[in-house]
Amino acid sequence: MDIFTQVAKSFENQAFMKTIGAKLDLVDEGRVVISVELKPSMMQQHGFGHAGVTFSIGDSAAGYAALTKMGKHQEVLTSEMKIHLMSPADGKILKAVGSVLKAGRRLLVVQSNIYSCDDKNEKHIATMLGTMVPSMVVD
Amino acid sequence: MDIFTQVAKSFENQAFMKTIGAKLDLVDEGRVVISVELKPSMMQQHGFGHAGVTFSIGDSAAGYAALTKMGKHQEVLTSEMKIHLMSPADGKILKAVGSVLKAGRRLLVVQSNIYSCDDKNEKHIATMLGTMVPSMVVD
Amino acid sequence: MDIFTQVAKSFENQAFMKTIGAKLDLVDEGRVVISVELKPSMMQQHGFGHAGVTFSIGDSAAGYAALTKMGKHQEVLTSEMKIHLMSPADGKILKAVGSVLKAGRRLLVVQSNIYSCDDKNEKHIATMLGTMVPSMVVD
Amino acid sequence: MDIFTQVAKSFENQAFMKTIGAKLDLVDEGRVVISVELKPSMMQQHGFGHAGVTFSIGDSAAGYAALTKMGKHQEVLTSEMKIHLMSPADGKILKAVGSVLKAGRRLLVVQSNIYSCDDKNEKHIATMLGTMVPSMVVD
Repeated sequence: MDIFTQVAKSFENQAFMKTIGAKLDLVDEGRVVISVELKPSMMQQHGFGHAGVTFSIGDSAAGYAALTKMGKHQEVLTSEMKIHLMSPADGKILKAVGSVLKAGRRLLVVQSNIYSCDDKNEKHIATMLGTMVPSMVVD
Repeated sequence: MDIFTQVAKSFENQAFMKTIGAKLDLVDEGRVVISVELKPSMMQQHGFGHAGVTFSIGDSAAGYAALTKMGKHQEVLTSEMKIHLMSPADGKILKAVGSVLKAGRRLLVVQSNIYSCDDKNEKHIATMLGTMVPSMVVD
Repeated sequence: MDIFTQVAKSFENQAFMKTIGAKLDLVDEGRVVISVELKPSMMQQHGFGHAGVTFSIGDSAAGYAALTKMGKHQEVLTSEMKIHLMSPADGKILKAVGSVLKAGRRLLVVQSNIYSCDDKNEKHIATMLGTMVPSMVVD
Repeated sequence: MDIFTQVAKSFENQAFMKTIGAKLDLVDEGRVVISVELKPSMMQQHGFGHAGVTFSIGDSAAGYAALTKMGKHQEVLTSEMKIHLMSPADGKILKAVGSVLKAGRRLLVVQSNIYSCDDKNEKHIATMLGTMVPSMVVD
């Protein structure tokens, strides 16, 4: 099972990613891209994408980037994550690029950058920095 | 307009809170409780509540706790937020208790504690610490 | 070797704690207090205690609080730590109270609250939230 | 007064930076490098540089990077800062590179990367992500 298939299989089982309509765009070793179309159901009170949506795809992108560094029968869990919301999520699509800063044996330091995209522009709206921990899974 | 009505009005406009079925349980000055029933649509790949759901209600509870410290025509925005996920969200209901640690003129330090609740037990599953900034709104 | 002696022994070997004149005031299970007298050599450009001093004692207090939850031949390392600086460190003494929120097998979630103290007052100037990881040591 | 002189003037007044022997190496707009020689007085109990030293120069580098984005009579204060310690500080020199991710009117999102340097190697040992707030100063 290649790395994309392994991540896609886990992604398929994330009901919440389906609920918000998130898509797995790209899986490289140490780098994963997830995107979501911003729908009215995902807004906060000012009509921008809710911070929880931005966090959700950023967290998943970072987690799957970590997963590409793990062995076959492992999963990862978010231990802690910090997000900076730098600009409103006012585009049509949000795109999260997760990557791995340091892959240790017991924990991985990961980051995620989230972009709000329109037809022409891509705006860097949020950055995340956190810790993933490996968890053994039984298939 | 009392403090509960003011917060409830803003909460009503948070489409994403409706989408996940979150409820505004309590509004005191500097303290807000939001809860959500964990449904299959909110799960991650292990069958527990997705970190994004926990983050979303925790962030909103902290933000509204901050709002209770602001003047009438203001709103707050999350500037940054850190979440520690300490135990799996495996209960029936998630409950977030947001509060204010320091209410400055230009920014507010807030925290949120999230509990996973069953019929008999309440487990502390996550803690959040972050910064809210006031934003002027025009009604 | 009791818990205070174990922590004191490790504290003695922290040259940097000696350099800034920090003292180990109290060691309970899951709770450690460290204080430091603010001297001119520890100031930043406004004449207040440098954030690095506040961080240093807060980090050590949190780490030793974690150590009280570990076995005899272990040490802990800071994996990551967040600090909120809420008020200037303008007192005579800084006091850090470290405690443990969650003691897991592979990592511990810790917090630290730092107070600036004068003859009569104690002001809450900073709060920290972070992750400690156990590390085996050979005596 | 050029940007290097402005930052150098403020750096000179940071007694704690002098105490630990930190040097201001480089000042560009939005980017500042500070280094420090690791001396026995700065160690923790395992003989590596104390997290507080790493934090101190990283925080100052990030703060001064923010200062280069401000007007003439302003200063900045650290509002909050997160540090990930990824490898032990076991080199001869620590070097912190601070930069600005987002310069807003009311707050700046900053980062700092810290390297442990020997004669031949440079190891990325820590990364920081935080918030600086402008503060008016009267000369």
